[in-house]
Amino acid sequence: MTLADTRNSTELIDVPRGLHNVAVTETGLSDVRGFEGFYHYRQYSAVDLAASRDFEDVWRLMLLGELPDEPQRATFRAQVRAAREIPADVAVLLPQLARLSGHSGPLAALRSALSLVGASAGLRPVYDIDDDARARDTITLCAVTPTILAALHRITRGEPVLAPRADLGHAANYLYMLSGREPSAAHERAIERYLISTIDHGFNASTFTARVIASTGADVAAALVGAVGALSGPLHGGAPSRALDTLDAIGVPERAGSWVRERVLAGDRIMGFGHPVYRTEDPRSRMLKQIALELGGDLVEFAIQVETEVINQLAQLKPGRRLHTNVEFYAGVVMEQCGLPREMFTPTFAVARVVGWCANVLEQARDSKIIRPAARYVGPQPPQPVPAG
Amino acid sequence: MTLADTRNSTELIDVPRGLHNVAVTETGLSDVRGFEGFYHYRQYSAVDLAASRDFEDVWRLMLLGELPDEPQRATFRAQVRAAREIPADVAVLLPQLARLSGHSGPLAALRSALSLVGASAGLRPVYDIDDDARARDTITLCAVTPTILAALHRITRGEPVLAPRADLGHAANYLYMLSGREPSAAHERAIERYLISTIDHGFNASTFTARVIASTGADVAAALVGAVGALSGPLHGGAPSRALDTLDAIGVPERAGSWVRERVLAGDRIMGFGHPVYRTEDPRSRMLKQIALELGGDLVEFAIQVETEVINQLAQLKPGRRLHTNVEFYAGVVMEQCGLPREMFTPTFAVARVVGWCANVLEQARDSKIIRPAARYVGPQPPQPVPAG
Repeated sequence: MTLADTRNSTELIDVPRGLHNVAVTETGLSDVRGFEGFYHYRQYSAVDLAASRDFEDVWRLMLLGELPDEPQRATFRAQVRAAREIPADVAVLLPQLARLSGHSGPLAALRSALSLVGASAGLRPVYDIDDDARARDTITLCAVTPTILAALHRITRGEPVLAPRADLGHAANYLYMLSGREPSAAHERAIERYLISTIDHGFNASTFTARVIASTGADVAAALVGAVGALSGPLHGGAPSRALDTLDAIGVPERAGSWVRERVLAGDRIMGFGHPVYRTEDPRSRMLKQIALELGGDLVEFAIQVETEVINQLAQLKPGRRLHTNVEFYAGVVMEQCGLPREMFTPTFAVARVVGWCANVLEQARDSKIIRPAARYVGPQPPQPVPAG
Repeated sequence: MTLADTRNSTELIDVPRGLHNVAVTETGLSDVRGFEGFYHYRQYSAVDLAASRDFEDVWRLMLLGELPDEPQRATFRAQVRAAREIPADVAVLLPQLARLSGHSGPLAALRSALSLVGASAGLRPVYDIDDDARARDTITLCAVTPTILAALHRITRGEPVLAPRADLGHAANYLYMLSGREPSAAHERAIERYLISTIDHGFNASTFTARVIASTGADVAAALVGAVGALSGPLHGGAPSRALDTLDAIGVPERAGSWVRERVLAGDRIMGFGHPVYRTEDPRSRMLKQIALELGGDLVEFAIQVETEVINQLAQLKPGRRLHTNVEFYAGVVMEQCGLPREMFTPTFAVARVVGWCANVLEQARDSKIIRPAARYVGPQPPQPVPAG
């Protein structure tokens, strides 16, 4: 018989707000070294992986702990590409789902659709899921996410939904399903590198949400639906398209200096700058800036001018504050260069991050300890008599 | 300009597994005193509230901080009862939703339905929600939860869906929508007391999930959908019907002793006993046992015999382990006495807890700090060169 935890303490343990720097568990998946500007998936630099591997290889690394050799690659590819189709009982509901989510956007629609896929007969009941079933469910849910997002996008625009193509890689297939055109090799590779670099990044709020839900023994879809919800919050996933809106608001390079100065003096947040963990350049930002430069064009030149101006103004106005572009700034530039519509920027982030969420769900589910913290009660002291109603 | 947190520490803070006893924030909503067997909502004993107030009064207390006087009660009642109808664009999808959730059960269906209500045009877009809009959304989502659950239940059984009745209180209306009959005063009051006692209970996994999601600024539905997912896990919300399955498995009072002994010796968990926080009798269990005795009948007598036998056997086999019935044990008995079908036990818990989740979401959303913990990386050390693919 498993007894409840019997530690006989009533003492609360105080920790920094937002659980900053609090190690809630051990992980073998990834880590972010904020002072070095370095992050890794298992034993490999994430940026190196993005430079030299394809998305499916890194997906397998995150789930199974190993990069594949050639036969393993063929097996994993076949498995994940076969899982891209939306289950028929969910696919028929997408038009209604797109319509009623018109105000709330693609992440709210994805949240509903993943909930439905998780509930549909192909997956498990919510109780007593074993590790193998859970791992299979992660494949289904990750593989179907780009298909769902592309379908919802095309339905919203009145365009016919396109079936996934098993001859295309993860990024190319996603871009094809969105636009109806096979992407150029440069665009495919740019988005693939972005997606790989975005799979995982420590215990951000959405990943932690997925782990708290998984700690109850809930099914994979329950964890992902919560994670999508967390990602939809403006303090978490909201920035990529807003960073680009900043560039639009500035309009011409000559206005950058005065615009930035006004914002800083007004105490406004400038989207695309600063990160809760990095105290140096964000390695994702550096990589994406390089990709943006390789793709070329006016937008990247303008973005670099604005970046320089923001950093210069901040150095003058807030000396000693080291602030850098974060992943959202150049991610927005790269996605715009590759023709992705802005409303799909955060959803595209979700296409990658869902793989990281799933790796975290599988790791957490192997731990049998539910995550159940405490809080310090600071309200009026009980017990006071309940007044007659 | 709001800068990211600049605390310049790389030191991780280690805390107990599962964040046990870790005070993740301050709260003015509720607290559980595990060693006293006492819990409260704001300044009032929750059990006292359950004894003397109706559900809507306590709902208002949790949301607004005050029990209502007579005019305030009338206003709040009118507001929440007017919000019980399922939005038409979601209601039409419920039959398909019930069908495709057949394997995964009512909580998975509720998860999808709340996601759809949250996305539907009546509520907010996911960005930039102000406190007032958020508070209104909580009313809508809490008020519609029993209607959704009852509708899904009746659709699954091939029965016509019943519209909510504004002349009935929260518990009575729920029981009516489920069964098609107005409940007896005794059943209404028993379930109402159960629901009130279940609104909130510290930072359990589902409540904490809701708060992590809310900390990103996401909409209320995003937080609730995650919380329902956490509740669906067998380590969290799974027990009430299983405790009753235990009674079925034992069958007759004479078998209780030997059955319990076998389970304990086999190291199995006995559902309905033990709690991660209480080190004494669970005050909810005490209250529900009293309600069960008031309702009377063979089931409660049998349940008391089994309870006595479990505690006696444990005292012999595991001396020194203080183990008590938890809320699930007598909650299951009371719900069975009132005619609730077993598959609706955990969903009925959700009917109450959704109000607690919402109070927590509103409190968390007023804090601008995202919840983003860390983890201790224990895998192979990077950076290792990425092998050629």
